[in-house]
Amino acid sequence: MYLAKVTKRVVSVVKHEAYNGKKVYVVKPVLPDGRALETEHVALDYIGAGLGDIVVCGGAPGVAQSIFGLDLAPIRTLIIAIVDKIDYNENEL
Amino acid sequence: MYLAKVTKRVVSVVKHEAYNGKKVYVVKPVLPDGRALETEHVALDYIGAGLGDIVVCGGAPGVAQSIFGLDLAPIRTLIIAIVDKIDYNENEL
Amino acid sequence: MYLAKVTKRVVSVVKHEAYNGKKVYVVKPVLPDGRALETEHVALDYIGAGLGDIVVCGGAPGVAQSIFGLDLAPIRTLIIAIVDKIDYNENEL
Amino acid sequence: MYLAKVTKRVVSVVKHEAYNGKKVYVVKPVLPDGRALETEHVALDYIGAGLGDIVVCGGAPGVAQSIFGLDLAPIRTLIIAIVDKIDYNENEL
Amino acid sequence: MYLAKVTKRVVSVVKHEAYNGKKVYVVKPVLPDGRALETEHVALDYIGAGLGDIVVCGGAPGVAQSIFGLDLAPIRTLIIAIVDKIDYNENEL
Repeated sequence: MYLAKVTKRVVSVVKHEAYNGKKVYVVKPVLPDGRALETEHVALDYIGAGLGDIVVCGGAPGVAQSIFGLDLAPIRTLIIAIVDKIDYNENEL
Repeated sequence: MYLAKVTKRVVSVVKHEAYNGKKVYVVKPVLPDGRALETEHVALDYIGAGLGDIVVCGGAPGVAQSIFGLDLAPIRTLIIAIVDKIDYNENEL
Repeated sequence: MYLAKVTKRVVSVVKHEAYNGKKVYVVKPVLPDGRALETEHVALDYIGAGLGDIVVCGGAPGVAQSIFGLDLAPIRTLIIAIVDKIDYNENEL
Repeated sequence: MYLAKVTKRVVSVVKHEAYNGKKVYVVKPVLPDGRALETEHVALDYIGAGLGDIVVCGGAPGVAQSIFGLDLAPIRTLIIAIVDKIDYNENEL
Repeated sequence: MYLAKVTKRVVSVVKHEAYNGKKVYVVKPVLPDGRALETEHVALDYIGAGLGDIVVCGGAPGVAQSIFGLDLAPIRTLIIAIVDKIDYNENEL
């Protein structure tokens, strides 16, 4: 699981039926201090995230299917939580 | 899940039977701005993608088997969607 | 599975229900000599770890669900053990 | 799934019983143009590959067990196909 | 699956019960020529490996549970085999 920023939305006509009616975002992994890593992933939204949100991304086998009421779905990465703030201690690594 | 460009096709005579009659592509992960990452993966086509298409690649345990009507298949990476366009906001990270 | 230091806590109101009432931490992978890698992950606490602890992080399909008594949960990374010390031999690589 | 070259064979007396009588190779991931990546994996042969072959490596939960008639096996990476050639288009990325 | 050298042992009092009575090692991935990669993982011993051994590390869902007679275990990385030697051909990549 990792922190990421929702940066773009993917529009696609030809796709696996499990993706119908769902928001497919490009998410950019970020460090807690806001720096972005030099990569971007694709994730399906589950909690109503929007462009610009900092979120927790992840997944586990079978979860996407259960959430969306599907039998089997090629969905590995979900947006699971919207991050409000990140607490840390003074002696941080 | 990640964005990738379909760049080559893999031709193979000796292979696991689950691969018979399917298109095996080399896909090159790309960033949304089109820059390509310095790596390439192998993916099986599910939606009719062709050379040059920008696609969403991914997979989940059991999905490849279900899609292709197989009992068990050593297929981890599928081409799931063809990307038409990518929307973004002005204040992007 | 990998060694990591617990560095921050993630606070989130909008989230998957499996995350309710659990501590969500940012963990920074570290080498045994204490050097930190240039990345950070998100992990759920299972054993009562706190900020500053060196821990073992990992997971396996179904474990998070079993531990927390959930049906299905998008939880891939757990804090599994708090590290007390690391023994090594003189001829280490 | 990825392209790799079979470069070495691993000889091991003390091992998990699922590895008995099988060929364990070191495989070096390669790009389609032949350049090798700076890493090497360990894979079990399923299709009769030999040293020097370019192959497709991959795996999926349960497949190794099914192929080899085992109940459970700590085998994640299989050699799935021997590559004969790789077709590409002129406008490649 | 990958080659690694067993370099350190992790000592931990507070941990998931699946780890009780088992040896938890730090393993350092190595290339076949002996060069070490700049990372280290945590693995559970299954075959009696000791500090300094070159081993094959890996895992698969459900295997750790089966091996150790557990119901569910957050164990993803096992030491599967001790490497005696590595054969290669002259025209190696």
